[in-house]
Amino acid sequence: MFLAVVFVFVSGVFAAEARYSADWTSLDARPLPAWYDEAKLGIFVHWGVFSVPGFGSEWFWWHWQGQTPPDPNCVNYMSKNYPPGFSYPEFAPQFQAQFFDPGQWADIFKASGAKYVVLTSKHHEGFTTWGSPFSWNWNSVDTGPHRDLVGDLGEAVRNRSLHYGLYNSLYEWFHPLYLIDKKNSFKTQEFVVNKLLPEMYNMVVRYKPEVIWSDGDWEAPDTYWNSTAFLAWLYNDSPVKDTVVTNDRWGNGCACKHGGYYNCEDKYTPGQLPKHKWEKCTSVDTYSWGYRRNMKLNELMDLPFIIKDLVQTVAMGGNYLLNVGPTADGTIPPVFEERLRGVGAWLQINGEAIYASKPWRVQYENSTLPIWFTSKDSIVYAIVTTMPPKSIVQMSAPKTSLKTKVTLLGNPKPLAWSPLLPDGGLTVLLPELPETPGKAWTLKLEGVQ
Amino acid sequence: MFLAVVFVFVSGVFAAEARYSADWTSLDARPLPAWYDEAKLGIFVHWGVFSVPGFGSEWFWWHWQGQTPPDPNCVNYMSKNYPPGFSYPEFAPQFQAQFFDPGQWADIFKASGAKYVVLTSKHHEGFTTWGSPFSWNWNSVDTGPHRDLVGDLGEAVRNRSLHYGLYNSLYEWFHPLYLIDKKNSFKTQEFVVNKLLPEMYNMVVRYKPEVIWSDGDWEAPDTYWNSTAFLAWLYNDSPVKDTVVTNDRWGNGCACKHGGYYNCEDKYTPGQLPKHKWEKCTSVDTYSWGYRRNMKLNELMDLPFIIKDLVQTVAMGGNYLLNVGPTADGTIPPVFEERLRGVGAWLQINGEAIYASKPWRVQYENSTLPIWFTSKDSIVYAIVTTMPPKSIVQMSAPKTSLKTKVTLLGNPKPLAWSPLLPDGGLTVLLPELPETPGKAWTLKLEGVQ
Amino acid sequence: MFLAVVFVFVSGVFAAEARYSADWTSLDARPLPAWYDEAKLGIFVHWGVFSVPGFGSEWFWWHWQGQTPPDPNCVNYMSKNYPPGFSYPEFAPQFQAQFFDPGQWADIFKASGAKYVVLTSKHHEGFTTWGSPFSWNWNSVDTGPHRDLVGDLGEAVRNRSLHYGLYNSLYEWFHPLYLIDKKNSFKTQEFVVNKLLPEMYNMVVRYKPEVIWSDGDWEAPDTYWNSTAFLAWLYNDSPVKDTVVTNDRWGNGCACKHGGYYNCEDKYTPGQLPKHKWEKCTSVDTYSWGYRRNMKLNELMDLPFIIKDLVQTVAMGGNYLLNVGPTADGTIPPVFEERLRGVGAWLQINGEAIYASKPWRVQYENSTLPIWFTSKDSIVYAIVTTMPPKSIVQMSAPKTSLKTKVTLLGNPKPLAWSPLLPDGGLTVLLPELPETPGKAWTLKLEGVQ
Amino acid sequence: MFLAVVFVFVSGVFAAEARYSADWTSLDARPLPAWYDEAKLGIFVHWGVFSVPGFGSEWFWWHWQGQTPPDPNCVNYMSKNYPPGFSYPEFAPQFQAQFFDPGQWADIFKASGAKYVVLTSKHHEGFTTWGSPFSWNWNSVDTGPHRDLVGDLGEAVRNRSLHYGLYNSLYEWFHPLYLIDKKNSFKTQEFVVNKLLPEMYNMVVRYKPEVIWSDGDWEAPDTYWNSTAFLAWLYNDSPVKDTVVTNDRWGNGCACKHGGYYNCEDKYTPGQLPKHKWEKCTSVDTYSWGYRRNMKLNELMDLPFIIKDLVQTVAMGGNYLLNVGPTADGTIPPVFEERLRGVGAWLQINGEAIYASKPWRVQYENSTLPIWFTSKDSIVYAIVTTMPPKSIVQMSAPKTSLKTKVTLLGNPKPLAWSPLLPDGGLTVLLPELPETPGKAWTLKLEGVQ
Repeated sequence: MFLAVVFVFVSGVFAAEARYSADWTSLDARPLPAWYDEAKLGIFVHWGVFSVPGFGSEWFWWHWQGQTPPDPNCVNYMSKNYPPGFSYPEFAPQFQAQFFDPGQWADIFKASGAKYVVLTSKHHEGFTTWGSPFSWNWNSVDTGPHRDLVGDLGEAVRNRSLHYGLYNSLYEWFHPLYLIDKKNSFKTQEFVVNKLLPEMYNMVVRYKPEVIWSDGDWEAPDTYWNSTAFLAWLYNDSPVKDTVVTNDRWGNGCACKHGGYYNCEDKYTPGQLPKHKWEKCTSVDTYSWGYRRNMKLNELMDLPFIIKDLVQTVAMGGNYLLNVGPTADGTIPPVFEERLRGVGAWLQINGEAIYASKPWRVQYENSTLPIWFTSKDSIVYAIVTTMPPKSIVQMSAPKTSLKTKVTLLGNPKPLAWSPLLPDGGLTVLLPELPETPGKAWTLKLEGVQ
Repeated sequence: MFLAVVFVFVSGVFAAEARYSADWTSLDARPLPAWYDEAKLGIFVHWGVFSVPGFGSEWFWWHWQGQTPPDPNCVNYMSKNYPPGFSYPEFAPQFQAQFFDPGQWADIFKASGAKYVVLTSKHHEGFTTWGSPFSWNWNSVDTGPHRDLVGDLGEAVRNRSLHYGLYNSLYEWFHPLYLIDKKNSFKTQEFVVNKLLPEMYNMVVRYKPEVIWSDGDWEAPDTYWNSTAFLAWLYNDSPVKDTVVTNDRWGNGCACKHGGYYNCEDKYTPGQLPKHKWEKCTSVDTYSWGYRRNMKLNELMDLPFIIKDLVQTVAMGGNYLLNVGPTADGTIPPVFEERLRGVGAWLQINGEAIYASKPWRVQYENSTLPIWFTSKDSIVYAIVTTMPPKSIVQMSAPKTSLKTKVTLLGNPKPLAWSPLLPDGGLTVLLPELPETPGKAWTLKLEGVQ
Repeated sequence: MFLAVVFVFVSGVFAAEARYSADWTSLDARPLPAWYDEAKLGIFVHWGVFSVPGFGSEWFWWHWQGQTPPDPNCVNYMSKNYPPGFSYPEFAPQFQAQFFDPGQWADIFKASGAKYVVLTSKHHEGFTTWGSPFSWNWNSVDTGPHRDLVGDLGEAVRNRSLHYGLYNSLYEWFHPLYLIDKKNSFKTQEFVVNKLLPEMYNMVVRYKPEVIWSDGDWEAPDTYWNSTAFLAWLYNDSPVKDTVVTNDRWGNGCACKHGGYYNCEDKYTPGQLPKHKWEKCTSVDTYSWGYRRNMKLNELMDLPFIIKDLVQTVAMGGNYLLNVGPTADGTIPPVFEERLRGVGAWLQINGEAIYASKPWRVQYENSTLPIWFTSKDSIVYAIVTTMPPKSIVQMSAPKTSLKTKVTLLGNPKPLAWSPLLPDGGLTVLLPELPETPGKAWTLKLEGVQ
Repeated sequence: MFLAVVFVFVSGVFAAEARYSADWTSLDARPLPAWYDEAKLGIFVHWGVFSVPGFGSEWFWWHWQGQTPPDPNCVNYMSKNYPPGFSYPEFAPQFQAQFFDPGQWADIFKASGAKYVVLTSKHHEGFTTWGSPFSWNWNSVDTGPHRDLVGDLGEAVRNRSLHYGLYNSLYEWFHPLYLIDKKNSFKTQEFVVNKLLPEMYNMVVRYKPEVIWSDGDWEAPDTYWNSTAFLAWLYNDSPVKDTVVTNDRWGNGCACKHGGYYNCEDKYTPGQLPKHKWEKCTSVDTYSWGYRRNMKLNELMDLPFIIKDLVQTVAMGGNYLLNVGPTADGTIPPVFEERLRGVGAWLQINGEAIYASKPWRVQYENSTLPIWFTSKDSIVYAIVTTMPPKSIVQMSAPKTSLKTKVTLLGNPKPLAWSPLLPDGGLTVLLPELPETPGKAWTLKLEGVQ
């Protein structure tokens, strides 16, 4: 870690505040900065050299040349369209990002209602979307876009008062130093000491990300990655020590157990209310996180599905990190833009039930139709994600009182309602429901328990 | 035209049937084959080398290097992204169509409810999407896709019982023979005799298109293009003489006046019922017919707009030819697929009011909300393209009787209605309107006048 | 041939001079313009898209995709280095000629001692190295170099007082119109009438070549190519009617029989003195006329071999057309430059025996060592192409007299000599022979018979 | 240097033999392995990504983007031929070496008479021509040739009993870690510790080079490069400790002072006999070490010049390392092949005076014409590098005796000679000198002093 000193300012002044020590007990005890739980919705952006072949998924390189046996689709695609011997790094010059307009991207992300944006600073391919001195000629400044993608997007995102985070893969499938360590059963740390950690310190100091979305940890234990030391530095001494959040991918066995919030696994959907803050990451393209040139409509989540998924996630205490894969040209495909703006339009009306909400005593009921609950102080929000077949909605969970007041978000007029059962529940008479492509409506219940 | 004999079978047997002579009086008198008016909806596909830069529009070459002064956006784009001296023909090898699956395209077109498909066999750039012997090394078989795009798509389209048509540009911006003729004020016909006509005969005989969507006629009179002779052959002796339809772009001054159906101009929208069969061609991407790599969502028509446009066109007696621009990779962008499938979903329910319909006595009224009418025999269809604010719809034009019956397409239950005024009109009580992304609903009126 | 009128000025004024008619009897009777026989040495330049693969030879396309079965070396080369489906026309954008400096080329050609230069204006691949309006997008102006190679080299060559000629292939392996004619056993002339002839007229009028080096004639008779009509025009009415020379490749069976001078066959070497002016074309690279990227030294003619070949050719009444293949980058490989400058250095001293010489009564003897003779008026030149083992040279053919004087070219001092036999021959005492990489020395014999 | 242990076998067994310590006093005292001085002639090969632009020289990157101000030729070349923003690493995929045949190269090197071959394993651009794990995606295995160039050539060279050496640049113009150290005035060693040394150890162990031709040392002192430690390891413990030779580029101030043999500077030509073994490196292309696509003949050394240079170098006690630059395609341009074979042909006859020779008491005299002397035991070789104008040669330096015998190498017959002056010198009567493109002849003097 000696390299770090070159780049990193290490505070020499003793701070009176408590410091975290490099062990999970200490690190896990750190409270999450408040902004994160309030944000609820983030946008995930997978962008890299994998966007050039845009085939299969962002795991293309691995599927083509890493796994045994290789994926025949990838092998066939390459042998049909490229000369023999063409290698993955040779895709990089075609990653040109010539239409990349960070302001336009950030406008779309802002319009989605998201409060944070997480960009891949480096995926498993190892290509950094910034000018890492530890990844010479394999980064977006030296080749391809010739541009600091991480920096340029970050500035645009922050100018719109969104939080900015960076995805970072710990492992790199084909990095020769990593392969040496792997061969040595991770008893050596050539890769970690000479490549990974210096790069991560450099990245944090340079870009001050408020999320570090760690990934690619699973082949080795956290002791190999030096994760606890890194996190102790991040929480004690880094320039983002007070605001940064991280996830739980810091070594084999950490997922759902250590770190900041929990991702557990991709597209994780808990069956009951988790005890620890968590985040569901998922992708509009259900087959891939990176851009696929040949994606088809029926492989994408439609807007009602996304809204339903967001609502369920928030009701269960999670954040929702929705992914789009931009093209190698630097554009966000219109179908993704449409989804993001659709979510934003829905949140314009229903956001009150989402942002800064808390899970309620009951998260879900399905007596007559599916209803998800969130709450804010004494208010309960009941979100209906199916068009009610009739003009009424029945709920069992809320306990009404004389002061109970029911409204439909987007409509100021109080709704008529009546108690359902002696010990709780109510029937609400719905107004004409407004047309909404999101197909979900929120009833705001005041004065219930 | 001597070349034609090489490829074209000219019937030597005298046919008893009447023959068309090579003049507009005779040609204009030909009745349109019936299938065309019944079809109502077609899909237009602009695909060519212009799909590679995918910048500005399919007129990129002209905007960059043809017009005076050139379009600075195009000039800047090229100077920023290509080496000096790079020429348009050098885009061709990048037109690879590696994902082109004609069956999948045809499935989407079928799902849109369209009854015919028109592909650019050659746009103004001169590149043929088939192996024209008159366009050596400047066609999709010799370079780029190395594939007969016209043939491959045609087979897939016809396998799904759709009619297949071909767009063909008469002029070619930069063809040296055309430029010679142009310089000679079209008093020579080097281009027409040696290039254009042999190619068109060859194309018709080879692919038997049922639509010839002619374009690029405006710089020269039909006498230059030899249009009447070509059409006489097409109607008398070609293999598609009984089924083919053409449009009205056969020479300067022909538009809206001669030929088969009338396009008049791109995106033509007549103010009152035209006397001649016509077609509105328009494009989902409002800025371009060809694919644009950097198109944004707000530059595209949304589904309700398209439906409204289709309804209005059909009510006014027109066909609707809706354009999408596939990518150079051979895919239909998902946002276009979404629009097409959306139209098809709407037609599943409302197609009865569209296909094989006729304009009604009144095409439109807007007493309380906009309503377009179509008819079929004694049935009148009233298509409402705005969500009615209340649960009733009022119409002035239809005259009811005791036998009048009103239903909502998609709902078998007869609706309550009452006469509006002594001399006509009615008020219909609407049921709960079904959710539809198309935002248009059809009332079927039986027993009205 | 109607197209010709567009470009060609046909003299309408009757000229008193005799005109050639379009038959071989008349055409063959035309005397060759004098400059040609005097020139003796020309440089042949094969340059085209074939210079890009630079593999095998300029016949690469044919060997790869034309002949049956294809050449496995070419097939393997392509499948090993290019994606499947890559087509020959896609090489064109890589023909960039970025270093092409016509002045520098012409300096080298001038330094070689050559008096004329012949460039491929179009080889069998059909790609024109000028902006032919009949070869749109398949010429050096529309794609690749973006430059008029024929015009630019011509200007530089003429500025150095060299004659300028153009090679032109009649047939084009893969031109679709040619293939149609071929399929029709050359009973149709689509290719000739619509492509070949208009292009040739245009080329002659535009560039005024003094040599038309015709090729690619062998698959069809001259009646197919309309050769006699073209030549009659060339000799009667073209702008080069008084100075142009042509060769004998004007149709199957013409070689060595009709036309201007005779090439007979590539690298033709007659066994005895031909009766008709002829030319030996040959190439420094013995394997190819076009550039080969992987040529090896032992595949090239060395300088002594070239000099010997030149001497033998001139002694036998021929011209020597020595070929070099420039790179696709536009450079003449130094090894070729070395050969050409070597020839020039030799001619500096020995040119007197070559330029404007005539074959002598005896062309060759080999009594003690090989000697080639040329003559000019009463002077006889004896050219020794092997280092004489001793300091004397014996010759049998010349008949000496008292006035006989012998000198070594490059050395003014008269040499001692003595008669050999009663009826002729002499023995010459040599001085120290000057070092010369050409390894050939000329004895000038005055006053011999 | 901790990385070294991963790859390097460090002998743990104590060897009785003396060990070198990591200081110049000790290292400089090491005797050069004998093979090197006996070899006299080596071939230098500059090959890398710089061979792709092939413009200016192998310093292209620096001239284009490193120095201030940049070289306008390079800037213009790039702006004229490449899109704006194109970066040097993007040349790598075009370094394809598709014709690289190591056996053929080695045959040429062998035929040149050289006894060792030195290939650039990494030039200042940093691209390794082998799969260095410390230069991921910037080496010839990961991109471009997809091949171990160092290994493949080494095997072929050794199969022909030639010694194999590797050029290695210490500095890398644009390596970000190097730039950090440079900015820190070389007080940090990030580059050396993390990149350079691990790579060098790995290279030595993997390829066992017998020459390490160090370069790029001049910006920093040897203490920065850790040169003495590396050399101590190399001489004590490396697999080539007994046979390896190195040069003198191990840090600023080392040249001509420390290390193995001395290069002093490129193309160094001492005025008098150096006291330390030295080597002159020079290049057939006088403008460049790397291939230049647009080299011209007059920019190249011709054969007589090379022979003269070789002779002078050997007479002065040096080795001669003659450079050729192969193309990016993997071929040795024929003009270089010609030079190398020419040297070899000369050495076939004259090698006796070169290989394993020692400088003589007098190295040079020029009484009547330039003569260089070498010696072997009691034999003296006098090498005449100009064609003597008359049939005699006079020399002043050798002192003859009655036993003196003079022969011309290549001719067994003893030559007549006579003493010149009382105290030394002789006049030799020459036979007819054999034709030789090398234009240098050797007189072998036995029995002289």
